[in-house]
Amino acid sequence: MRATVIYGAGDVRVEEVPDPEVEQPTDAVVRVVRSCICGSDLWPYQDREPDEKGSRIGHEFLGVVTDTGSAVTNVKAGDLVVAPFVYSDNTCEFCTEGLHTSCRDGGMYGVAGVDGAQAEAIRVPQADGTLVGLPVGEDDALLPSLLTLSDVFSTGHHAAVKAGVAAGTDVTVIGDGAVGLCAVLAAKRLGAERIVLMGRHTDRTDLGREFGATDVVADRGEEGIAKVRELTGGSGTHAVLECVGTKAAFEMGVGAVRAGGTISRVGAPQYEEGPIGSRVFRDNVTITGGIAPARHYIPELMPDVLDGRVEPGRVFDRTVGLDEVPAGYRAMADREALKVLVKP
Amino acid sequence: MRATVIYGAGDVRVEEVPDPEVEQPTDAVVRVVRSCICGSDLWPYQDREPDEKGSRIGHEFLGVVTDTGSAVTNVKAGDLVVAPFVYSDNTCEFCTEGLHTSCRDGGMYGVAGVDGAQAEAIRVPQADGTLVGLPVGEDDALLPSLLTLSDVFSTGHHAAVKAGVAAGTDVTVIGDGAVGLCAVLAAKRLGAERIVLMGRHTDRTDLGREFGATDVVADRGEEGIAKVRELTGGSGTHAVLECVGTKAAFEMGVGAVRAGGTISRVGAPQYEEGPIGSRVFRDNVTITGGIAPARHYIPELMPDVLDGRVEPGRVFDRTVGLDEVPAGYRAMADREALKVLVKP
Repeated sequence: MRATVIYGAGDVRVEEVPDPEVEQPTDAVVRVVRSCICGSDLWPYQDREPDEKGSRIGHEFLGVVTDTGSAVTNVKAGDLVVAPFVYSDNTCEFCTEGLHTSCRDGGMYGVAGVDGAQAEAIRVPQADGTLVGLPVGEDDALLPSLLTLSDVFSTGHHAAVKAGVAAGTDVTVIGDGAVGLCAVLAAKRLGAERIVLMGRHTDRTDLGREFGATDVVADRGEEGIAKVRELTGGSGTHAVLECVGTKAAFEMGVGAVRAGGTISRVGAPQYEEGPIGSRVFRDNVTITGGIAPARHYIPELMPDVLDGRVEPGRVFDRTVGLDEVPAGYRAMADREALKVLVKP
Repeated sequence: MRATVIYGAGDVRVEEVPDPEVEQPTDAVVRVVRSCICGSDLWPYQDREPDEKGSRIGHEFLGVVTDTGSAVTNVKAGDLVVAPFVYSDNTCEFCTEGLHTSCRDGGMYGVAGVDGAQAEAIRVPQADGTLVGLPVGEDDALLPSLLTLSDVFSTGHHAAVKAGVAAGTDVTVIGDGAVGLCAVLAAKRLGAERIVLMGRHTDRTDLGREFGATDVVADRGEEGIAKVRELTGGSGTHAVLECVGTKAAFEMGVGAVRAGGTISRVGAPQYEEGPIGSRVFRDNVTITGGIAPARHYIPELMPDVLDGRVEPGRVFDRTVGLDEVPAGYRAMADREALKVLVKP
C-alpha cells in the first residue's frame, strides 16, 4: 500500500510500504477513508533534521475496520470508525480520569513502529479503547466534520473546557488556524458570550465570525493586547485559548487575560521557558491546557456533529488524494490552504 | 509612635514616626495588638537596594480600632479586628468574584504613603471592606492563630483551594516555612489523604506532621522528585502546593506533579521565566495560585480557628516587642526562628 513518510524539513513523500497487519491481539487494521494534515505536522515539516530512514506521519483519520486481533471486541471488520490522535486503552487510571493522552498503554502514531494515518491503511494499537464507531456510511457528507473529532475540534473543545468556558464567559482565542477556529466554535457551543478572535487572515477570521467570534483583532503583540483590553473595559477576558504554540502567542495570552482568569494552551509549545513571573502571580492567572484527550470528548461532541448543530468540518478548504499529500503540506505551510483533507 | 522602617538589605530600624490619622473618609486607625514578620518580608531584607528615605514594612496585624472616617460603618472605635494583608473595598467586581487582591480600590501596606503593620498603630484604607471583627478579647490565647488569617494561613488555604484539594486528594507541599506548614494544615482541613511535605528542617517538618503531613521528603531537586514519585507509585501527586517562590522549588513541582495535576504557587516567584514547555503540556499540568485573597477566606476559616479545630498560630515560635523587630528579622533570616510574633 501507499503511505506518507517524512524524511526531514520540506521532504514529505508518498511511498509503497508493506500492508499493515494485526501484530498484537489488541490491534485492528483500518482502511483509511479520510485523513488530513494537522497544523502540528507543520512543525517537523519546518524544522526536522534530515533522516534517511524517514518516519510515517499523520494522526487524524476515520476509516473502515478490515481486521482485528483476537482480543478486540468493541469493533469488527466492516465498521466505520473514527480514531482520536492518540491511542489508549480506555481502562487505565488516567483514561478513567478522562486523560487518555496519559494512558499507561497509549501512544502516538508515526513513532516507534506505529503507522501514520496519511496512508491507505493503518494498524491501530489498543483498538478497543481507541476506535469509536460512526453511525453513517462511508460517503456521508458529514465525514469532514466527523473527522475533526479525531483532533482539531476535540482540541479546540479541550482548550475551552480547561479554561472553564461556560454560559456568559468572555473569551479570547489566539490564532486563526483550524484549531483556533474550532476553539471559537467550541467556546460558542459552551455558551461563551463575547469571543474575541486574534488573527490576521481575513478569510479565516470570516469563518471564525460564522463560528461565533464577536470581535476580530488583527494586531499582534502589545497592540493586539491593547485592542483586547479596549474591548473589555481595560480588564482582558476571563478565558484565553492559546491555539498557536509560539512564545509570542503565549505572551499575548498573558497580556490579554483578566486577573483571576485562565490561559488554556492547546498549541504545542515551541518553547521550554515562558513568562510566569510577577504578572501571572499578582493577578492569580491560571495556566492550563495541554495535549487534548480527544477520546474522552468524542462521545460528548459526536451527537452535535451528527445533528448538524456544529460544522467543524468547514475548516477543510482543500481536498487531495494521497499522492498529492506533499502538495498539501506545501499549501498549508505557505498558508494557501487552511486545512487539507486527504481522500486516499 | 514607633514603627518599623526598612532602609535596605539587612537594615531594619524601629523609629519614632508621626501618629497615624484618618486621611480619607474610608480610613480607620487601628492600634496594633499583634503583628508579625512574614517570609516575604525577608526578600527585601535580603536584597533591597539602600534607600535613605526608607519604607514602612509589615502587612499582617490585628488590633483595636481607635478612629474611623466618616464613611466607615462596619467597624467602630473599640472593636478588635483582623486585617488581610491587602486592603480592598469588598464591593468591586473583583472582590465580588473573591479576588480581593485585584480590588479596584485596593493596595498593599508599606508602599505609596500607606503605613506598615510592624508598628504601634496603622492607618487602614478601605476600612469597611478590609477589617473583620474578632469576637474575642485583646488578650485571648487564640490571637496568634487569629493573626494567621491575615496572611499565612489564608495563603496556605489559597494554595490548597486553587489546587482543587478535596477529600482523598494526594498532595505535595514544597517548603517547610510557615506558609508551607499552613498549606499542610489547610490541605488536611480540606480532606487531603496523603500529604508529602518537602522540607529539611526537622523541627519544622515535625510540626508539619502534627498539622497532617503523612510523609516528609528532605531531599531536593531530582532526588526529592524521585522520592515523591517513589511514594506515589511513580506517578507524582495530583496537587503540588509550591510555598517557597524560588525557581528551583517550582521545578521540583513540575517534577513531582502527576499528569493531569495542578501546581499551585503561593510563594512569590523570584523568577520571571519558568519551565512550562513540553512536560507541562504533554501531561496537561495546570499552573495556578498567586497572591492570596485573604479577605475572601477569613469568614470561612475563622470559625475553625475559634473552635480550636485548627491551630495555625503554632507556626509562631518566638515573640518579640516592637523594639526587638530588627532582631526578629535576623532570627528569621538565619533560620533560628520559624515565624516571629510582634507584640508592640
